[in-house]
Amino acid sequence: MIMKGKFITFEGCEGSGKSTQIELFRKYLENNGIEYLFVREPGGTEISEKIRAIILDVQNKEMTDEAEALLYASARAQLIKEKILPALNSGKLVLCDRYIDSSFAYQAYARGLGMDFITKINSYAIENCMPDKTVFLNISSRDAFLRKGGADKDDRIELSGADFHQKVYEGYLKVAKDYPDRFLLIDCLGEKQQTHENIIKALGI
Amino acid sequence: MIMKGKFITFEGCEGSGKSTQIELFRKYLENNGIEYLFVREPGGTEISEKIRAIILDVQNKEMTDEAEALLYASARAQLIKEKILPALNSGKLVLCDRYIDSSFAYQAYARGLGMDFITKINSYAIENCMPDKTVFLNISSRDAFLRKGGADKDDRIELSGADFHQKVYEGYLKVAKDYPDRFLLIDCLGEKQQTHENIIKALGI
Repeated sequence: MIMKGKFITFEGCEGSGKSTQIELFRKYLENNGIEYLFVREPGGTEISEKIRAIILDVQNKEMTDEAEALLYASARAQLIKEKILPALNSGKLVLCDRYIDSSFAYQAYARGLGMDFITKINSYAIENCMPDKTVFLNISSRDAFLRKGGADKDDRIELSGADFHQKVYEGYLKVAKDYPDRFLLIDCLGEKQQTHENIIKALGI
Repeated sequence: MIMKGKFITFEGCEGSGKSTQIELFRKYLENNGIEYLFVREPGGTEISEKIRAIILDVQNKEMTDEAEALLYASARAQLIKEKILPALNSGKLVLCDRYIDSSFAYQAYARGLGMDFITKINSYAIENCMPDKTVFLNISSRDAFLRKGGADKDDRIELSGADFHQKVYEGYLKVAKDYPDRFLLIDCLGEKQQTHENIIKALGI
């Protein structure tokens, strides 16, 4: 394994502004002539998108948490071998919207499957392809909700949903403690341009 | 977890006569009024069958060995929680055509992913739902081929295919050594009725 390129992932709770920040970061890379591959999880390859379709299909109500976590791990393994490693080995920067830390936060912590199980089933990623840096948009699900003015009528921000997303946020903070050198906790309570500058400064690129 | 019922799996190489023996065994159970659930892998639930379709789709040529193994593990986790454990807990006998030992033989050994990886990604099955007894139709892929009179024109019995299936057979023998109490090595070189009687005798039911 050569991996000359840098592997950067973006993580955050729902409403953290992750998509906006990824967009600004991509523009920054393009403006600075930095060649990169952008992928999102779950998905990013033909096979991984087929797996994504099973994960997201609302008809699959009976899906167990374990089966779901294994589908994410499978889509990830395919993405790593088919796209991420070849790009890194050719010296490209790879930017991924969500990666293994989403499995840690959402599945190990919020769904309660535990770090041991999620670590085991993601051993391929852990042994072969961990991010160099992870940009974590550090805003609690509650603050993200308040920033929206509390007027969001999306069903996901209901009480049980809010509890789940709070667990996700707390999960991310635990993961950040486990990987202090990799995790960049980004203050994102200000304007989006300020947050973007915080990200560039933290990454040092 | 209660698991009053018995969990029996059938394993064997291609051409070992597994399907025939499962059919004879199911007739035996029915003739003796033994209530049972029959499932096959990969599959057995709506979601697991969707995963099976991805695994078997000939268009998915780019599928990596790791992603494939994780899909099998996901379909298995779903089958366990949705079908196998409820049946065992209600006192039923559960009969499964292929199970975790197929992952050991085909993926850990023949594909070379290693027992450590396959054990990790199947930790849910290993910790919650291991077979009481595994009927292994003990005939090498070479002998199965010779028994057919060498006239099988199926492309799968070409040289590289034969090597792969030999590795599968050797893999099964290694797994049998790891689980001597669970694995029943069944002599199946004789007539199918004789093999069936060997199975009933070995299972002691």
